This record gives sequence, C-alpha cells and structure tokens, in this order.
Amino acid sequence: MEDMQVYLFEEAAKLNLTKFELGGKGYGLVEMTKLGLPVPPGIIITTEMCRRYFREGKVLLKKIEKIVMEKLRIIEQKTGKRFGDPSNPLLVSVRSGAPYSMPGMMDTILNLGINDEVVAGLVAITGDKRFAYDTYRRFIQMYGKIVMKVPGEEFDKVLEDVKRKLGAKNDLEVTAEGWKEVVTLYKELIKKKTGKELPQDPKEQLISAIAAVFESWWNPRAVEYRKIYKISDELGTAVNIVMMVFGNLDDRSATGVAFTRNPSTGEKELYGEYLPKAQGEDVVAGVRTPRPLSELKNTLPEVYNELKRIAGILERYFRDMQDVEFTIEKGKLYVLQTRTGKRTAQAAVKIAVDMVEEGLITKEEAIARIDPSDLERLLHKQIDPNIKAKPIAKGLPASPGAAVGKVVFNVEDAVKARENKEKVILVRPETTPEDIAGIFAAEGVLTSKGGMTSHAAVVTRGLGKPCVVGAESIKVDLDREIFEVNGIVVKKGETITIDGTTGSIFLGSIPLVEPKITGAIDKLLSWADSIRRLGVRANADTPQAAEKARSYGAEGIGLARTERMFNAKDRLEIVQAMILAKTVEERKRYLEKLKPFQKEDFKGIFRVMKGLPVTIRLLDLPLHEFLPKLDELLPEIVEMKIKGIDEDELKKRERILERVLELREHNPMMGQRGVRLALTHPEIYEMQVSAIFEAAIEVLKEEGDTVRLEIMIPQLSEAEELRRMRELVDRVANDVMDRLSVKLEYKVGTMIETPRAALTAFRIAKYADFFSFGTNDLTQATFAFSRDDVEAKFIPFYVDNGILPNNPFETLDIEAVGRLVKIAVKEGRKANPKLKIGICGEHGGEPRSITFFHEAGLDYISCSPFRVPIARLAAAQAALKKSLELKSTA
Amino acid sequence: MEDMQVYLFEEAAKLNLTKFELGGKGYGLVEMTKLGLPVPPGIIITTEMCRRYFREGKVLLKKIEKIVMEKLRIIEQKTGKRFGDPSNPLLVSVRSGAPYSMPGMMDTILNLGINDEVVAGLVAITGDKRFAYDTYRRFIQMYGKIVMKVPGEEFDKVLEDVKRKLGAKNDLEVTAEGWKEVVTLYKELIKKKTGKELPQDPKEQLISAIAAVFESWWNPRAVEYRKIYKISDELGTAVNIVMMVFGNLDDRSATGVAFTRNPSTGEKELYGEYLPKAQGEDVVAGVRTPRPLSELKNTLPEVYNELKRIAGILERYFRDMQDVEFTIEKGKLYVLQTRTGKRTAQAAVKIAVDMVEEGLITKEEAIARIDPSDLERLLHKQIDPNIKAKPIAKGLPASPGAAVGKVVFNVEDAVKARENKEKVILVRPETTPEDIAGIFAAEGVLTSKGGMTSHAAVVTRGLGKPCVVGAESIKVDLDREIFEVNGIVVKKGETITIDGTTGSIFLGSIPLVEPKITGAIDKLLSWADSIRRLGVRANADTPQAAEKARSYGAEGIGLARTERMFNAKDRLEIVQAMILAKTVEERKRYLEKLKPFQKEDFKGIFRVMKGLPVTIRLLDLPLHEFLPKLDELLPEIVEMKIKGIDEDELKKRERILERVLELREHNPMMGQRGVRLALTHPEIYEMQVSAIFEAAIEVLKEEGDTVRLEIMIPQLSEAEELRRMRELVDRVANDVMDRLSVKLEYKVGTMIETPRAALTAFRIAKYADFFSFGTNDLTQATFAFSRDDVEAKFIPFYVDNGILPNNPFETLDIEAVGRLVKIAVKEGRKANPKLKIGICGEHGGEPRSITFFHEAGLDYISCSPFRVPIARLAAAQAALKKSLELKSTA
Repeated sequence: MEDMQVYLFEEAAKLNLTKFELGGKGYGLVEMTKLGLPVPPGIIITTEMCRRYFREGKVLLKKIEKIVMEKLRIIEQKTGKRFGDPSNPLLVSVRSGAPYSMPGMMDTILNLGINDEVVAGLVAITGDKRFAYDTYRRFIQMYGKIVMKVPGEEFDKVLEDVKRKLGAKNDLEVTAEGWKEVVTLYKELIKKKTGKELPQDPKEQLISAIAAVFESWWNPRAVEYRKIYKISDELGTAVNIVMMVFGNLDDRSATGVAFTRNPSTGEKELYGEYLPKAQGEDVVAGVRTPRPLSELKNTLPEVYNELKRIAGILERYFRDMQDVEFTIEKGKLYVLQTRTGKRTAQAAVKIAVDMVEEGLITKEEAIARIDPSDLERLLHKQIDPNIKAKPIAKGLPASPGAAVGKVVFNVEDAVKARENKEKVILVRPETTPEDIAGIFAAEGVLTSKGGMTSHAAVVTRGLGKPCVVGAESIKVDLDREIFEVNGIVVKKGETITIDGTTGSIFLGSIPLVEPKITGAIDKLLSWADSIRRLGVRANADTPQAAEKARSYGAEGIGLARTERMFNAKDRLEIVQAMILAKTVEERKRYLEKLKPFQKEDFKGIFRVMKGLPVTIRLLDLPLHEFLPKLDELLPEIVEMKIKGIDEDELKKRERILERVLELREHNPMMGQRGVRLALTHPEIYEMQVSAIFEAAIEVLKEEGDTVRLEIMIPQLSEAEELRRMRELVDRVANDVMDRLSVKLEYKVGTMIETPRAALTAFRIAKYADFFSFGTNDLTQATFAFSRDDVEAKFIPFYVDNGILPNNPFETLDIEAVGRLVKIAVKEGRKANPKLKIGICGEHGGEPRSITFFHEAGLDYISCSPFRVPIARLAAAQAALKKSLELKSTA
Repeated sequence: MEDMQVYLFEEAAKLNLTKFELGGKGYGLVEMTKLGLPVPPGIIITTEMCRRYFREGKVLLKKIEKIVMEKLRIIEQKTGKRFGDPSNPLLVSVRSGAPYSMPGMMDTILNLGINDEVVAGLVAITGDKRFAYDTYRRFIQMYGKIVMKVPGEEFDKVLEDVKRKLGAKNDLEVTAEGWKEVVTLYKELIKKKTGKELPQDPKEQLISAIAAVFESWWNPRAVEYRKIYKISDELGTAVNIVMMVFGNLDDRSATGVAFTRNPSTGEKELYGEYLPKAQGEDVVAGVRTPRPLSELKNTLPEVYNELKRIAGILERYFRDMQDVEFTIEKGKLYVLQTRTGKRTAQAAVKIAVDMVEEGLITKEEAIARIDPSDLERLLHKQIDPNIKAKPIAKGLPASPGAAVGKVVFNVEDAVKARENKEKVILVRPETTPEDIAGIFAAEGVLTSKGGMTSHAAVVTRGLGKPCVVGAESIKVDLDREIFEVNGIVVKKGETITIDGTTGSIFLGSIPLVEPKITGAIDKLLSWADSIRRLGVRANADTPQAAEKARSYGAEGIGLARTERMFNAKDRLEIVQAMILAKTVEERKRYLEKLKPFQKEDFKGIFRVMKGLPVTIRLLDLPLHEFLPKLDELLPEIVEMKIKGIDEDELKKRERILERVLELREHNPMMGQRGVRLALTHPEIYEMQVSAIFEAAIEVLKEEGDTVRLEIMIPQLSEAEELRRMRELVDRVANDVMDRLSVKLEYKVGTMIETPRAALTAFRIAKYADFFSFGTNDLTQATFAFSRDDVEAKFIPFYVDNGILPNNPFETLDIEAVGRLVKIAVKEGRKANPKLKIGICGEHGGEPRSITFFHEAGLDYISCSPFRVPIARLAAAQAALKKSLELKSTA
C-alpha cells in the first residue's frame, strides 16, 4: 500500500510535496501545519489518486477507504473525538483542491459523519438542538445534492416551505424544531427522488463523498472554467478530509475570510469579512451580508490579533498576499485555508511594488508577478472626473473601473449580445458559478446582494471587469426583466453606467476617460524599462495620440498613418477633387492644396515628440477609399435620373460614379495600395515627403527640436519597389533641404507585411534602414483571412470549436506568421547588419506576441498608446524569461 | 596590336572562335569559309571590339582603321580589285552581326567604297550606267541614313519625286539618268540636312560605317527587341566587311534566300525565294514580290543544283535547318550568310522528328530543340472546318493559325487596344522594324505587299502569330484608316478573321477550333513521355474538357472544380434558393434537389476518364458568388420602389438583397470560401461527397471502370480544418458505400494555396494523401496581389518598368512562392513519406515554372487541357536539363 498517496497533514509536511500533488488547498493546509499554525487535523488524498481513480475506476476506492480509515484512527486518538461516535463525534469536511484555483467550481461536503444517532449525541453534548439539526440538514443538503444527485433547488424549495410555515424571514429565525423538520423532509425527498435512504454509515458517507469530489473534476462548470483559463484536464483534484470546526456554535463562534492586504487597493492592512455564528459556505455564497473584519477587533480582540499575527507569518512565508479562510469555534481560531489572494490589477501592482520596497521580493519578481493583461485592466476607463452625474444608487465597489452597457438579466442575453458586439451590464440579485459565461460576456456586473468577497466580486476582480455588488436599494425582478430603484424602473435593454471604483450606478451612458499612470504603476514600469531590451513605441496619428503615447512611456512613434489626415472633413473634398483629376498636372494642383494640411499635421506630431523618432508611413489606402461607396452612389443616381432633378448635380455624381467604377477593386486589401499606387502616381508621395521635410525643418527652426524622421513605405512585395521609393524620398528630401538650407538625418524603411516581403527580405534589406512588421496584414495574407470578413464570420466559430487556438489577429500565429518574421529578421540582418527591426501591427501590444518578438530579436515594438504600459511590462517579462532560460541552460 | 580582334574570314576559321565573338552572321561566314563554300572574301571585327569601343571611345577607331586597311590589302591582292580604284573597284558591305539574331534591328551599309570617281569607273567597266548609278544611290541612301543621320523618309521623298517626274511605276522603270539625278539630289539633301558633304574617301566611309554599326547596337528598336527577347545589352555586335557581289548586274544575276527545309511546313525540300536582278535588301524589304526558288531550277539550273548541294552540306554540318542568303553575280553563286532558320512551330516539330529519323540528331536533342511555347503556337486555333465562310480576299499564308480581331492600321492603335484587352489585327501595306511593337500587340498581321520572307512574315513566324502577307487585292489607305477589297470597305475597328494557314481573309468573326495532335507532334510528345518524370494531368470540369484532355495526353484530372456545376443555368435557381434558406433543414432540402445534377456531372467525367485518377475539388466559392451583384440589385430595387410596380417581385428582390448584404465581403478572395464555408455549413460538402461516391459506384456498375477518386479540400490554412473534413468525407463515403454495398479506394487531400498551409505542411501532411499546390491563390496571397485587380492595373506597369521580371501569375515567382512550395514539399514529405504532390494552378502549363516543379520534386503537374502537350514537352525538357546537370557535376 506504499503507493497509496494518502497522508495526514503532518506526514505530508515532511515529504515536500508540491501544489501539483496536494492541490492548492491541501498545499496551504500542509504548509500551515508545517508552520505550526492552528489548522484542524486532516488527511490529504493527492491528485495522483484522482488520476488513478479515472484510470483504474471504483476498485481504487476500497484501497483508499482502508488507508483513510487508518489515518482517521490517528486523528481520533489525537482529538479524542471518534468518527460516528454519538458521545463525542468527529465530523469532517470533504473538500476538493485542484492545483490551480477554480473558485466555486468543484464540490465540497461539510459536516460529514453525522447521522440520526450522532445528531442526537450532538444535541446532548452541546445542549444546542438547533445547532445540531442545522448541522445535520446542511450535511444532508450537500450530500444529497453532490453525492446523490438530487437537484439543489429541491432542497431549497423544502427549506422555503418550512420557513414560510414558520414565518421565518431568514435561516437565523428557523427554530430547532424547524431544522429537525427540514431534516425529516430532506431525507424523504432523497428517498423519493433516488429510491434510496440517506446513508447512516459514516464510512459509507465518507467514501462516496471522496468519489463524488473526484468526479466533480468533470462537472460541466469545471470543464468550462478550465477551458477558459487554459488549465489542463489532466491535472485532477486532491481531496482534503478535515476535522470540522464550527463557526455557528455560539456567539463566540464565527467564520470569515481575511486578506493579508487589501485586495482592492493593495493597502497593507488586514482586510476581510466575517459572519458571526455561521458556517463557511454562508460567507462565500453571499446570502447574508457579512461584517468587515475591523469589527472583529472589537468583538473578539484576542482572536483578531492572533489572525493578524498569522497573516504576517503567512505573507512572509509565501512571499505574497494571502487569502485566508478561518473559523472561530467558541473563541478558538482555526485557519482552514490559505492561498495567494486574488486582487485587482491596482492592488496587484501596489502589492508587488510595496513588497519590493519591504525587501520581501526582488524587482524582477515584482515584474514577473504582474499579468500584463492586469495592467490593461488597471488602465480600464474611468468616469470622466469633469462629469458631475448623479448616481441612482450606490453599492460596494467590488472591482474597479467603469463600464457602460445595456442592462441584461441573464446569461443567455449577455452571451447573445456579445455575439452581436453589443455591450451589456449583467444585473443579478447575486451571481453563482452558473453565471460565469454571462460575466464573461458582460462589460460589467451589478448585484443587489453580496459583499466584497461574494462570487460576483471575486470573479470580476479576477477578470478585471468593473463590478458593483450589494446595491441593496436596487430591487431586481428577474421575471419581468426590470430593476427598480427609488421609484425609477430600468428595463432590459436600457443603458446604465456602473463605477466599480466608487460603487456608483448611473442611468444612461456617462463619458469615460483613460486613466493616468502614477505611483506604484509608474515605479513598476520604470523597473520594467530598466530590464527590457525591446524598445517600445506607439502607433499615433495625431498630436493628441502622440501626447498620450508619451505620457504612457512610449519612446517614439512606430507608426504614424497618413491616411487619416486625408480623411479629415476639411480635406476630403480636396482629396476627392485630386482623385477625379483628369491629368497629372491637375492632380498635382490639388495635392499642392493638401500639402499645407499635411504639413500642419506633421508639425503637430513633431512638436509633441520633441526629438524622439517618428516613423511616418506614407499613404497606404487605395484611392477609392476616399470616394463615396458604390452602393450609396448608385441608388442616388438612379433616383435622380427617374425623378429628373438637378442636372448639374447628376452630372457631378455621374463623374464620381465613373471614377468609382474605374478604381473599384474586387479585393482592395490586395489591390493598388501603398507603394503600388505610389509607383504609378509618384506625385502623391512626393507631396507627402515634401510636407514631412518642410514640417520637420520648420519645427527645428521654431522649437529647436531635431526631428528623427523615419519614412516608411507600405505594402512592399519586391525590393525594387523600395529602391525606387528610396530614390523618390531622397530626391524630394534633398530638394527641400537644399531649398531651406537645413540638413536633416533621416531613415527610409519599409513595412514587411506581405509574405513575399518577408521571404525576400535579403534583397529588400539592401535598400532599407529599417523594417517594421505589419503583422495585421501579414496575418491576413498568410492565412488568406480578410480580417474585416472573417473576424466576425468564422474566427469565433474556429476558436470556440478548437480549430484555431486563438484569434490570430489578437495573438500572433507564431507557427506560420512568426516563421515569416524570423526568416525576415535573419535574412534581412544578414544582408544589412545595421537594419533596425520593429513591429507596428496590433500584436505589438499583446504580451504573448511580445515574448515572441523579443525572442525573434526585434529592436522595438509599437502599439496603440493605451497598450504602451502593457508592452513595457511584457517586454521586461520577455527579457526576464529569456535570462531565466539562459540561466537554466548554463 | 595583337589584342585587336580583326580577322580575315580564313584567319578566323583557324581560331575556333564562337558565335559570341563573331556574331551570328560572322560565325556563319567563317564556318562556311572553313567548309570551302563560295563566300566572298571579307573581314570580321569581333564583338569584343564593339564592347571596347563603348568602353574606350572613338580612339579605338584609329587602331581598327589601321588593321582593317591591312587586311583589305590582302583581299585586294587576292581579288585584283582595289578599294577606291575606279579602274577595278572593290566595294564592300559593312554589316552588323550580333550573337543572337535580331532581324532587321541593326544597320547595314552596302556598296561602300563607291564615290564620284568610282561610279564613273563602274560605268566604264560594266558598261551599265544604270547599274552603276543605282549602286551609288543605294550606298548614299544607306550611308546618309545610317551614318549621317538624315531621316530615311527624306530619301524616299526624293526618289518618289524623281519617279513621278519620270512616270516610273517602280524602281525597275527608273532610267540611268534617273538614278544619276537621284544621286545628285541625295548628295544635295545630305549637304542641306547635315551641312556636310558626302565623304568621297572610301577609307573615311569605311571607318565611319564601322562606328555607325557599333552604335546601332543602342538604337531604340534594337534595345526594345533585346528587352522583349531578354538578350543581354552587354553582348555587342560584330562587324562584317564583305566584298560586294552584285545580284543586280545582269539577267544572270539575282539575289535570294533559301531554306534547307520548308520553314512553314517542315518538308524536306530546298525552299525559298529570289529576285532576279536585285540586291539583297530588295528581298528582305518586301518591296517587290519575289519568285519561288523552284523557278531558279529552270532559269539557272546549274546554280540551283549548286545551291542545293551547299544546302545539304550546311545542314549536315550545322545539324539543323539553315536559312541561307545568296547572290548570283553573272551566273556565279555566292553564299552571303547562313544561320539556323526560323520556322513555324509546325515545321520545327516536323524537322526535329525527321532529323531524328534521318539519324542526324537524337530524340533528346529533338525534344530540347522545341520551344514549348512553339508547341503552344502550333496548337493555335484554326478556323472551324465545319464553317463554310467565303473569304473576301486571299494572300500568302505567311504564319499559320487563325486570328480574329478589330482592324487597326498603326502601332499606336494596336498598343492601345492591347492595353484595353481588345484583340486587333494589324493591317499594313507592309511592315518594317518600326512596327515591331504593333505586331507584338496584335493577334495577327495582314499586309497587302511582301512575300513569304518579308519582314511581317519572318517576325510573325518567330512570334507564332497568324499572318497573311501579299494580299494584293487589298488596298490599304493608312490616312483614311480603311482598306478596300473588291468594293468592300473595311474601317478601323471592324472585325476580321485571318487564316495564316491558308492565306484567307474573312469579314467578321469566324468561329475557331482547337487543333488535333497527330503525326510528328504525336511522335515527339511520345518521346517526351518516355523521358519526363513528372506526371501530366489536366484541369477539367466537364466531360468535354476531360475528353479533350485525354486526347491531348493527360494522365488524369488534377482539378475538377465543382462550382461551375453550381453555376449552370438549370441549377442556379435551386442554388439561390438553397442560399436563401432560413434553416439548415430547408437548405438540405435544396441541396437534395441539386444532388442529381452533381451526380450526373461526375458520372459524365468518370465515364470519359475510364479509371484514370480524378481529383475533385469540393466547392471553393463563397455563397455570394451565386447571388446577383449588389450594383445590379440596388438600382433595380430603387427603381421598383419609386415606380411602385410589382409588390411581390419587390419583396423577393428585397429578400435577396438582405442576403446579399449579409454575405457580402470586403475581400471575398480571403473570405468565407472553401473549407471555411464547409466547416460552418457541412451539409454542402456532405451532399457533394455523397453525389461523388454514388456517381462513382454507378459508373463502376454500369461501365465496369473503377473510378480513382481523389477528394480535394480547398482554401486550407490549418491542419485541423483538414482533419475534420477528412472525417466528414470518410463518414459520408462509408455511408454511401455501405448503402450501395461497394467498396471503393479513394484519397483525401488538400490544396496548398495559402502561405500558412505551405508553412504548416508538416502538420497538414498527417491528414493528407496528397497536396496540390494552388499556385494562383498562393501567388495572390504571397504578393498580396489580388489577381482580378492588379493584373490589369499595375502588373503590366511593373513588368514594363522592370520592377518585376514577369507577371507572377504567368511565370511562377520562384524566389518567394517557389520557396513556399519547396518548404511544403520537404516538410510535407517528411511528415508523410507517401504524400503525392502536384500543382493545379495555371503555372502547371508554363514551361519555366514546370522546370521548377520538376526540380522541386513534385509528382505531377495539372494544367488546362490545351496546355497538356506543352506540359508534356516541358516536363521532358526539365528532366533532360536535370540529367545534363547531373552529368556535368559527375
């Protein structure tokens, strides 16, 4: 039987087992046992046994039973209590515990070991009949649901009936006789639904509970959760059998959750909630609104101090903020669980930075600990501080950030809205694990019940979605799909705004703003800057965006698109006239009119960037993008013709139609764009280059800031295209510089955004000072996926059905697109060792892709301004990962 | 002076110099000198001297002058004639001679060495004043134009004036005095236009003529020609200085061209034309209509026999058909040039096959000698033999094949039409080297003058374009842009059909048909089949196409597209109803209605293919392809709405519009096509697979022919797509086979047509029995070139401007697309050594691409049926090339 991995906590403590074997909960319990903390005695069945159970089947249970009972005898000896002995009964909890936390996803049975005789014994010992029958009915309810598979609602119905009969408003008002009746009715319910009696034999209870916990690994909620968090189905769960302690025994009993630091703000303070006279499940379920831990200081000061001491020990030991479950039984504190505490992004950053300053962890650890997507959440929008809107209600600020969306009341509507790209706020009295898909789909969550550690609060914090809980003035009516607050009725589909930072709820859509980077984040990112090798730039087309990019730490602009400048309202008319021009001369005249606009655009950006590099991509769009769409133009013309109105206007329209038809393309994404247009219409780029250099020189003269210009040619598929464009840029640049008697350094480079450009990088690099990967277009061409068409139409289907692991427009497809990137980097550098290489597709702000770009040896990444902080952090993490790898191979 | 490469022919004969040094003409003269044939004595200046001339400049001319004059002294000694001596003058021709034939592209000066004194001497010696002055005026005309740069038309105008004054209809009617006057007027013209006198010093004439020939290497026509034929600008031309012999001296004098075999049919016969009493330029220029060589047999039988004997010697020596220029001076035959004769495709094949059978060359040589594009020309369309149209005129059948097009009268119109993708026939009185761009642009050429060796005839034969020359009943009026024939007036823009095989000219568009493969071609291709390693299949969607493919030697169908079956008129309505279906069930009902049609389509093809493999590609097109176009639908609906007619019809239209808008894609080429559609709408492929297997089993039962099915999935970008499709095919196939109790072998494979498929071939190959490269789509995606958009819009610009060497949709881009092919072949085979690999893009019928596919190790190529013979030949040549390479490295 040596291969049976079933241990007492103190046995396991000597074996140095890992979380993978003990599960998260078991690992915490074993470590705390090791530390001498007040953990109730218990037994752990490792995850290996779970895996074996799925391999070997029920025969394994016999063996487990034997060894569990042996261990239980030891606990009996230690505690004097006996399993199934009415005179001094040992009750246990049977809990799941997977290697990765899956909160609320799997099953737990409390109070196991109780039966008709034991309950009578409990009455005798405690003198508390109400407690004893409450304990029994809790067991039956959990056991009946989890092991005997009677639907949970059936038990709820029975309880509600009894409560109604007794006139009890809540569980606390149910009398001893009431609980006794519930026990009888529960047993009848089980008999009726399953044809079987509730097992009275504690051993039978225990073994069937162990099997049920194993099997809960495969319950649909758990499977769904693992899929979302990409947790392997192979891991399995451990089972923890722990002696019950009772937080519902008397007024000096309680149960609660403590965080070693504030999980919302990151402040260094013991933070949490507790429920007096309650069992643990009551807190998590959010049925009763718990009290803040600070109150415990007054009611049970010595227990509070002990808890604080333990919190300190745990944090120093685990070197991270802990989430501790505890129960107080008649004034004695027991710690039932410790784990790394979930926290808001804000708290995560503050805690990591504080711990560095406290000397608890290194800067590198702090950086490695922050999930870059947390940072994204942290940088979630906030209500515009200039807006003075009056909230219709207030709740608890459970997960920070503000969200705007239409109200929905159930998972289905939330999911459907998501598919239609609508933004919604999920409103529920409270949420349960069944609502997880709805929470995922929503922008934010609002509940009328529950506290800061309720299901909704915990899950949304994990996801970084704004959440307001316990807004008790709100009455949610799920059947009518409305909620009422102070006489205001809000129907399904109406828009509200919630602020998870303050707990406020507003009617309608309140303007949101981007947050600023200060304090702990600023510090963390400055550490990241000192660690990362990749440069971080931003994609920005306007002075405003450039400003924001700089405030977020961008070291330059990696992509300034020039087409938006063409598209602005005051220019579009000139642009269209330019396109309709019948001769090159006419076109040049209109281009000359456009030039002052372009110049001003560039000057605005240059002024902001104050000498940082600015990569300007010359016009990329096809000309037809600037003309009206055919399907607007055609009906207009038909109508004008039939109605016979306004001959002149009709002629004008027809001239435009003619040109639209001429320029029309079947697949414009692969049509006459970028360099292809520039080669046949060089006058456009000539104007742009002239505007750029005039702007740069004027800024230099006016402000004294040199502009580090990088001129970028889009849509290359052949080196010769670049050679000619470089000639054009040099010629026009020299003309301008000669004319204005100023010499500027500048670079000329190209987007690598067609597979052919990547595959012929060796030749292209000879004419390029820099490459910038346009991974959006490169992904399009490599998959032959038109992003506009496929991202809505079948990519979600592909990802949901496991045909693709990710949306390749979000996370770089390393296998194929990445292979092209590596080819271009290697062969481009070989041909031109001085080549600078960056990336300006959207993947430039995506952490997994950034890791790849680091490994591929790029010089910099460029992303949208609001992703710059994420990119800075992810780049540092990539550098750390790489240096760790180097260490481990050294 | 040893490094001066200037030789007498007999000196060069001892040095074993190559065509690269001697040029084509010089090489022929030197070799013939070696063979002891009657070549006039001469001097050759090698191409190296031309290259040096461009490097070193005019200083080189002094050195050349010195050595040329030394050699000339030797010729004077041998012939007794003296350069510049009026009593017995030596006149010479100065001719260019490049390593590759550039017919009519470069300059030649005849009769050099004549001046006022010499012409008088000539009169005295020959007693033929008319001949002497004709000779002088010819010299002045050529020298004036080529050396002194007086435009040729100016001389023509002078000549026309004199002729008009004399009432002479043609040159033959110009009297001695007339020529004398022409000489005077020409000299005045030169003086007037250049301010200089015509040089009287023969040495000065000679040296300036040599320089002019060198310089003619860079004349625009020659540069253009080299660009078209991809001849290096580096080569330079040799200069041949040859003693003049006179074909225009008396009635026993003549000049002509002889082919050692018939260049049009390939028959083994001495074939050619001559002009009595004429100089060589008269034949080539096509001014007078020459006589067939057979007439020479009667007029000068001994000369004819001598010519025939020489022809035999030359053909055995050069092991190929020769094109021989000769002149007869007073009954003595001189051979002035020999070169490999240009020939029609038909003649090329017949001559190659005949020469193998005569033991002159090997089968491999025969195969290597045929340009596969010749074969394409050979397989040019013919007038449908079932059509009994009456020609409006007849001319000489100068270059076989039939062509239909609109009449144009000048180069500019021909080129413009070509750009607009219009087909034209170029109609001219005769063509000159200036017309080359127009001939290129036209489908065929029609001239009213000239013979079988006229410029138009020679050039079109080279290009394989249909051509009718010497259609003398046609009166071409270039100014009015019409031609008249027997009272019929044909204007510019009207359509005619010409038949270069028979010489007939028809009004309007006569139906053309594909030719059959018989005789020599059949033999040559059967030799090719025994040499090639690549299999050759055809792309065919109908029984008719399959039939044709088989008759052209296809070994299977490499691509049967199924979308055309959806598009056929009798099905489109059902297809549209299927697309408009609101539920899967409704869609399935319509698919069931389509199935019998699909089944019949497949049965038709299977019956023809009789057990040869048939690769069927399941539906590739997006659904919207089968619905009306938005820009047709929209105006219709607007009109119906305004006019308020037919509510029901309007509703129907609006329903279609709704669906069209739903299915609309920005870039359909990269949208929901092929496997992407099949994954979300599996019922479509299920129907197709079911129809395929039912059809195969029925054909097996009815005809006893097993069908070798290969089911091909289009548009793959990820292995998982194929895994699922393979499952679908297997499931449906097994259902059908079980139901019909027949077991069939079949393969499942995929198109490799996205870069990602090529780059992830290793994973894809695990689920594939075969790969078939879709190089059209692969090229599109690799360049990000939408073929429909770019091929007209900027690829011609790119190719003309040297940005791309070729249209990559015609010739495979080996560098990038080819690299993807090689990656996929290598990694696909590594994962699945049994993998069969083919290609079914249009490159499958393009010789240079086929060479690449052979080298890349593909198993087969598949192309359109009419390209199958080309593919067979090109595949054999690729195999020969490879085996030659192996030999040379062994």
